[in-house]
Amino acid sequence: MPILPVAPVSRLIREAGAEGARDALAEVLESYGLEIAREAAGWAHHAKRKTVKSEDIREAVKRVKPPAFTER
Amino acid sequence: MPILPVAPVSRLIREAGAEGARDALAEVLESYGLEIAREAAGWAHHAKRKTVKSEDIREAVKRVKPPAFTER
Repeated sequence: MPILPVAPVSRLIREAGAEGARDALAEVLESYGLEIAREAAGWAHHAKRKTVKSEDIREAVKRVKPPAFTER
Repeated sequence: MPILPVAPVSRLIREAGAEGARDALAEVLESYGLEIAREAAGWAHHAKRKTVKSEDIREAVKRVKPPAFTER
């Protein structure tokens, strides 16, 4: 089961003028989001904080590569 | 108001072991998701389809750069 529910991603696609491929986009965002969250948690840990701050997200966004799309 | 609700992103952060920075990550994913959706819609249009397929998402993911993090 995906962590990111499909509904908001479906809304994203509608906003962009499209109608399908919801699951594919949801997976991409979930994978990318998890990578960023993990990397940001590492930065917080390195700074001896338990709270992840937006500065950790910033460092993570700089470093995490966008996900590869994997067909299933 | 963000298009992606904060709750699922907050869940993403929790899964990754962190506790904060929800809004920052939500914005990054919203921005990145919209870029991919727009690019994918363009690919569908080019193929004279109205339905965006996962192959359009795949082409979009290859091409869209990850978002720059902008502090507010």
